[in-house]
Amino acid sequence: MELRHFIDTSDFTKQELLDIIHLSLKIKKCIKTGYYPPLMRRKTLGMIFQQSSTRTRVSYETAMEQLGGHAQYLGPGMIQLGGHETIGDTGKVLSQLVDVVMARVIDHKTVVELAENCTVPVMNAMSDYNHPTQEIGDMCTIVENLPRGKKLEECKVVFVGDATQVCASLAMITTKLGMKFAHYGPKGHLIPDSPSAACMAAIEKNCAENGGVFEEGDDRDLVKGADFIYTDVWYGLYESEMPKEERVRVFGDYQVNREMMQLGNLGCKFMHCLPATRGEDVTDEVADSDASLCWEEAGNRLTAMRGLLVYFTRYQKDGTEAEKEAVKQELEAFMEERGLA
Amino acid sequence: MELRHFIDTSDFTKQELLDIIHLSLKIKKCIKTGYYPPLMRRKTLGMIFQQSSTRTRVSYETAMEQLGGHAQYLGPGMIQLGGHETIGDTGKVLSQLVDVVMARVIDHKTVVELAENCTVPVMNAMSDYNHPTQEIGDMCTIVENLPRGKKLEECKVVFVGDATQVCASLAMITTKLGMKFAHYGPKGHLIPDSPSAACMAAIEKNCAENGGVFEEGDDRDLVKGADFIYTDVWYGLYESEMPKEERVRVFGDYQVNREMMQLGNLGCKFMHCLPATRGEDVTDEVADSDASLCWEEAGNRLTAMRGLLVYFTRYQKDGTEAEKEAVKQELEAFMEERGLA
Amino acid sequence: MELRHFIDTSDFTKQELLDIIHLSLKIKKCIKTGYYPPLMRRKTLGMIFQQSSTRTRVSYETAMEQLGGHAQYLGPGMIQLGGHETIGDTGKVLSQLVDVVMARVIDHKTVVELAENCTVPVMNAMSDYNHPTQEIGDMCTIVENLPRGKKLEECKVVFVGDATQVCASLAMITTKLGMKFAHYGPKGHLIPDSPSAACMAAIEKNCAENGGVFEEGDDRDLVKGADFIYTDVWYGLYESEMPKEERVRVFGDYQVNREMMQLGNLGCKFMHCLPATRGEDVTDEVADSDASLCWEEAGNRLTAMRGLLVYFTRYQKDGTEAEKEAVKQELEAFMEERGLA
Repeated sequence: MELRHFIDTSDFTKQELLDIIHLSLKIKKCIKTGYYPPLMRRKTLGMIFQQSSTRTRVSYETAMEQLGGHAQYLGPGMIQLGGHETIGDTGKVLSQLVDVVMARVIDHKTVVELAENCTVPVMNAMSDYNHPTQEIGDMCTIVENLPRGKKLEECKVVFVGDATQVCASLAMITTKLGMKFAHYGPKGHLIPDSPSAACMAAIEKNCAENGGVFEEGDDRDLVKGADFIYTDVWYGLYESEMPKEERVRVFGDYQVNREMMQLGNLGCKFMHCLPATRGEDVTDEVADSDASLCWEEAGNRLTAMRGLLVYFTRYQKDGTEAEKEAVKQELEAFMEERGLA
Repeated sequence: MELRHFIDTSDFTKQELLDIIHLSLKIKKCIKTGYYPPLMRRKTLGMIFQQSSTRTRVSYETAMEQLGGHAQYLGPGMIQLGGHETIGDTGKVLSQLVDVVMARVIDHKTVVELAENCTVPVMNAMSDYNHPTQEIGDMCTIVENLPRGKKLEECKVVFVGDATQVCASLAMITTKLGMKFAHYGPKGHLIPDSPSAACMAAIEKNCAENGGVFEEGDDRDLVKGADFIYTDVWYGLYESEMPKEERVRVFGDYQVNREMMQLGNLGCKFMHCLPATRGEDVTDEVADSDASLCWEEAGNRLTAMRGLLVYFTRYQKDGTEAEKEAVKQELEAFMEERGLA
Repeated sequence: MELRHFIDTSDFTKQELLDIIHLSLKIKKCIKTGYYPPLMRRKTLGMIFQQSSTRTRVSYETAMEQLGGHAQYLGPGMIQLGGHETIGDTGKVLSQLVDVVMARVIDHKTVVELAENCTVPVMNAMSDYNHPTQEIGDMCTIVENLPRGKKLEECKVVFVGDATQVCASLAMITTKLGMKFAHYGPKGHLIPDSPSAACMAAIEKNCAENGGVFEEGDDRDLVKGADFIYTDVWYGLYESEMPKEERVRVFGDYQVNREMMQLGNLGCKFMHCLPATRGEDVTDEVADSDASLCWEEAGNRLTAMRGLLVYFTRYQKDGTEAEKEAVKQELEAFMEERGLA
């Protein structure tokens, strides 16, 4: 195995993505049983956050600790990324001090530049373009909740509402895995209108190569046949939130409520990347129903992080047991001799 | 054992509280000797702070690490508790990602709401109403420093000064354990005047059921017979501090100095939850004297945290060794097969 | 061994400093091989930062985790150092809650006062006066890159540019170890003009006792014969940065570029504590050349932290195995009896 970065699921084959998903689910099963595989033992993850975050940050930090390692929180303002130091230089320095880096960035090209300069794996923990760790977590949830008798490739996922990065990311991963994806949203807020517009090429390639189906528009019929209905908040990115009145005007018809859920297949499940704005993008009734997977989905953020961390650090190899024993003895002899034992 | 939260010592019996105190002291003895019981191994604590804190935060984080686990610091502004996400939803999500939650909150009902929504234990690390982790730590200090030949129930604890949450909390735990408690403070700053006023019912119940004695007022004679004299700062909560001139006018007669200490029993000890404002609530002479337990008391914040963490997570059960071995082998076989070993 | 603090390398003998350097290098070798010596197992480091920092913070946190311990980040505003609590009292409290303390302070006397009050080791992680952890890391880099056939004492280190704390610190450690040191900088920005001026006495003592050589001035000939050319940024301390125009006017002739490097010995190496302002204090060509040690040097910040942490905590002794077994059994018996097992 060689050093690779996790910036965009488009850089990986369907089989590689399935490996990551199934690795994540195997590790989840271990930890649920009380066996914590020490696959990140003594390793350190540097977590760069240009925006605050609950789920991503907590998931990564818990993941590292459960696997025997540690995550360092480098929050907004805590390091100077692109201030007194270029992004490239920060990447080169961090590569000397930690074993793996993740970054939640405002601008996608920041995480790309970081990856170009790091000699340890870099993971994209959401940019204005995509959210690939969310993709893996969501696929874990879907795989665990496949409709009875259906294969993954036979399922239809419908995203309702604003074309956020989560919407674009979901479109990319589902089509890559050969699933049916539809985005039901208002004109002007579809994927081609979003900062993630460039992903349309990837989606089209996915459909052509892997048999995925992609549809989008403001036609309510798109929701029909859904096995999973997914939504996200309406207010846009933290930096430039849409005022409540305006967003209700634009997205009011796209609330996931009882009626919307009934457009899907019998047993259709509800998903949400959270946080939800209850009463806007989803009703309490749906979010808290038996059809709701959103809490399990939050838990699978952690599932995904563990799998990703293990997958991308496998290329790092330790010395042999004999080599380790030799350096251990050398250290102990020195400490004994210098009165430090 | 079942899932319980630690919000208020009034929710527990005298015997349960004594169990927590003695568990804390046994673990302390282990760690002093260099044996670190791995009772929180690979577990994660989420620490929510709505206010900054030194002692509580450092204590919890050290406690988790000493016991083989890890604490995540979620400081002011780092997660959106009640902002873009309801408190309940944050609780549901955190329950998926960590094993136990603690919260220092501005408003007591926040920690109550969090506990109602979490499916992992929630610990109250101080609210405007009470400070139960401080209570356990203080009782550890008192148990370790009982006057010669006296039982716990025979001791008198006198709190001098402002009726802070620490004062109210001390009144609750001492009366629960059947001790004598007096608050010597100025009119208008007694427990019934404070945000913790509602605790008076608990105190009265404690006295009736467990033989505790409660007194308060501005009569200096209340200090007589004290085995422990305790004080706290005069400036009130961080958010709305009383200006120095005013607090000296109100509380000037309540400084713990040599004369005040001499009102207590021979060998009377000094306690303070810290930080102290030297020269205001306590003189240097008292704080730095042999009678002062305040540094040991700070150390027992850590003692209490360890005991509380262990006590409240005992309900979590792992799989059997055979089950663990089975999932381990399944993971290893998968990694081998997929070229990830 | 006894409790000591690491505030200033002048407090240590040449042999003690060499021990720390070689201990650091031995541990580095272990970890490169995949053996992580558990020399800080279950220990906690409290990291006080009055300024933000990338390298120091990440290095210390990684160091603790690699050695089996944990570092707590206490960033600007996260604890009240000298606010509601005196520095001394914070030191006394932290000594109860963590095993070792480090502090990056604005004013050198803060870290001195902290050390006077702590009963655990305190490490100076940079003040306005010096930067001793940087000194150890830099010496590790120099020892690993000695010119062929030369002893440490035969090497010449030239610092070019502004007399920052890093410059003063480098002067102190090199002369202490009997090396040749020159500072080539503009008048008004030499060591005696800096906040570190008081270190001149230490430097003179080092030269007299250990055979070190110290020179400084604005004569370009000082660079001749350099084995290592070192520089730092021109803008001064974060709090009072010199505007770009002014600093280019003052330091423009002191850029480390191809011509400057050619004044040194054949094979002369480039060092920089980083962050660098590319195009000001150093050209891209030099920073990214084979002669540049600056990334390796950043990695040796971690090397130094590990050695320092181990060296200064050796005085802490655990109980015997029999004592540990006894307290373990006592705890387990109590938990069994109280239904907590």
